[in-house]
Amino acid sequence: KNIAVLPGDGVGREVVKGATAVLEAVGQRFGHEFEFEYANIGGAAIDESNNPLPNETLELCKQSDAVFLGAVGGPKWDSLPSHMRPERGLLAIRKELGLFANLRPVIGFHSLLHSSPLKPEIAENVNLMIVRELTGGLYFGKPSERRGESGETVVDTLQYTRQEIERIIEKAFELAIIRNKKLTSVDKANVLESSRMWREIVNEKAALYPQVEVEHMYVDAAAMKLISRPKDFDVVVTENLFGDILSDEASMITGSLGMLPSASLTGDGFGLYEPVHGSAPDIAGFNKANPMAMILSAALMLKYSFNLREEAESIEQAVQEVLNAGYRTPDLQPNGNMVVGTEEMIEIVAQHVK
Amino acid sequence: KNIAVLPGDGVGREVVKGATAVLEAVGQRFGHEFEFEYANIGGAAIDESNNPLPNETLELCKQSDAVFLGAVGGPKWDSLPSHMRPERGLLAIRKELGLFANLRPVIGFHSLLHSSPLKPEIAENVNLMIVRELTGGLYFGKPSERRGESGETVVDTLQYTRQEIERIIEKAFELAIIRNKKLTSVDKANVLESSRMWREIVNEKAALYPQVEVEHMYVDAAAMKLISRPKDFDVVVTENLFGDILSDEASMITGSLGMLPSASLTGDGFGLYEPVHGSAPDIAGFNKANPMAMILSAALMLKYSFNLREEAESIEQAVQEVLNAGYRTPDLQPNGNMVVGTEEMIEIVAQHVK
Ligand SMILES: CC(C)[C@H](C(=O)O)[C@@H](O)C(=O)O
Ligand SMILES: CC(C)[C@H](C(=O)O)[C@@H](O)C(=O)O
Repeated sequence: KNIAVLPGDGVGREVVKGATAVLEAVGQRFGHEFEFEYANIGGAAIDESNNPLPNETLELCKQSDAVFLGAVGGPKWDSLPSHMRPERGLLAIRKELGLFANLRPVIGFHSLLHSSPLKPEIAENVNLMIVRELTGGLYFGKPSERRGESGETVVDTLQYTRQEIERIIEKAFELAIIRNKKLTSVDKANVLESSRMWREIVNEKAALYPQVEVEHMYVDAAAMKLISRPKDFDVVVTENLFGDILSDEASMITGSLGMLPSASLTGDGFGLYEPVHGSAPDIAGFNKANPMAMILSAALMLKYSFNLREEAESIEQAVQEVLNAGYRTPDLQPNGNMVVGTEEMIEIVAQHVK
Repeated sequence: KNIAVLPGDGVGREVVKGATAVLEAVGQRFGHEFEFEYANIGGAAIDESNNPLPNETLELCKQSDAVFLGAVGGPKWDSLPSHMRPERGLLAIRKELGLFANLRPVIGFHSLLHSSPLKPEIAENVNLMIVRELTGGLYFGKPSERRGESGETVVDTLQYTRQEIERIIEKAFELAIIRNKKLTSVDKANVLESSRMWREIVNEKAALYPQVEVEHMYVDAAAMKLISRPKDFDVVVTENLFGDILSDEASMITGSLGMLPSASLTGDGFGLYEPVHGSAPDIAGFNKANPMAMILSAALMLKYSFNLREEAESIEQAVQEVLNAGYRTPDLQPNGNMVVGTEEMIEIVAQHVK
């Protein structure tokens, strides 16, 4: 399998090795071969070629079987005009590769629960999956501009086609079927026309998946319930910006942003895999970043792009074992445990996989 | 002072008496006179006159010095077409009266902390104020419609004028000055043009309020920080839909949605006061609803519309005393305390005010 590796910026460059090292260990144990080819994105790409998503990078991704992305962004590029910002690279690669389904599983690790801001009885045993639409909505709708003689009015456009909504809803139903058969669709149908269409489509599709229990929830209510009763959720499906907000909120449940992986998929199993956390410029370069989110993203790749379930589980199990053995990067309130750096943690997990 | 009282639907009809009874007590103690006139809104108004915001109601509000609103909505009206839904009454009254500044203070009551999903060390001493823009953005932008031959595309429009953004930012700075002089402006400037204009205006205004410490935060990061470090916030200002989501999320910090009041203001001190909670159809009619949010909304009215600070504090103190004395409505996990109904609670607080 050929995998494009885009380290990006900041801690992205450090954690990305977590994915490649662990995949090599998987290769050794199970007899697979993974080839890695590297390219720039985000700030690193701006520095090199004045373009947050260079053509070579995009081409490399298109010729690969999957993509690993570290993270993008940093203060160095913060004052550039908006079309030249590292985030543009991220938005562009999602759109160009058609990665419309962003999956963000939120699973608490028992041994890390103490660092959640939620009470243990609320946070423990949470196991939910946020399915966020990733290539539509306010992120890409046109017009998005200032108007009037001196730009006195500004508009952004929340736009969806029926087909864009249908495919993400179908994806969510398919995930619900192989999980706990409950789907919560989040919208703002009491205000937005797009949400009313979204709700109609969910109801249409629900008829095709009678095994799945469906509920509709307003986004404001969902923002409450995610913290007051997170265990009530199984699969949550929502549009792009609601998904951005709710998945970041939900990431707090486990208390460890550094542990959360994500997959961004096309309709046919091609995917980009990246940690939920960002480039964390404040700790970049100090061998302090938690590589687990990236490592677990590699497990998602094995599952969703290559259908290698046993191999994926070997990674998830290794992560669990290493945590149980008491290894912690500094972000995980490591009092009383063995503090290790990014590189050591990667090495330890890779050993466990083997 | 003439006050328009719009009980609305569900528990709104029960809790609204909390505001009038407590104001009468304030009147007796401090020698003020409050006149109450009643009108319908929401489902009750649809039943009576096929219009969620009848003209008489709007006129009454315009002639009054302030407005009390209970809550609107219920299953009875859920299948009506969208222009005939109870929520339309709420959106229309905000727009028609120009209530652009929605203030939602989030203050934890020590004796209720145990019902928060957050750990006590995270939730205690939280004292923040969300300032939500209430008459612009995706809620009112046009077009909001289906397009194409068979409605295959749908759009909503996030629209703001410079002046709409300026006035809400100014309001937030003014509140920050009389609070703890810290303002967090929440946007999505890495994606939305409207957010970039918002951020520019915050920076312009910041120059006029040098005493106030200003920070910008992306809405996804804010959704995380509100639960992981809520004490870091003082005043939070944001656009309409972000404010809807974040203020509902923040309401969970205190663990008691039934305790949270809100004020919706025009530029010159006129205001509508309502609880943050909805019409709660499941418990409506059982004398079970918590009237405290409505009672505390009356205190906000005294403060923001009539500048009667001592009077407002007498209500807030009464609420505190009654909680300390152990009285609880059923929503407040009342184990070991004195459970009382809506009416009894109103009576007890009114007595304490006197
Ligand atoms: C960096 C930003 C544009 C991006 C988004 O909003 O999608 C990020 O927050 C994410 O969730 O991946
Ligand atoms: C009922 C609904 C339209 C309303 C809103 O979204 O503004 C409500 O959620 C609120 O926050 O007052």
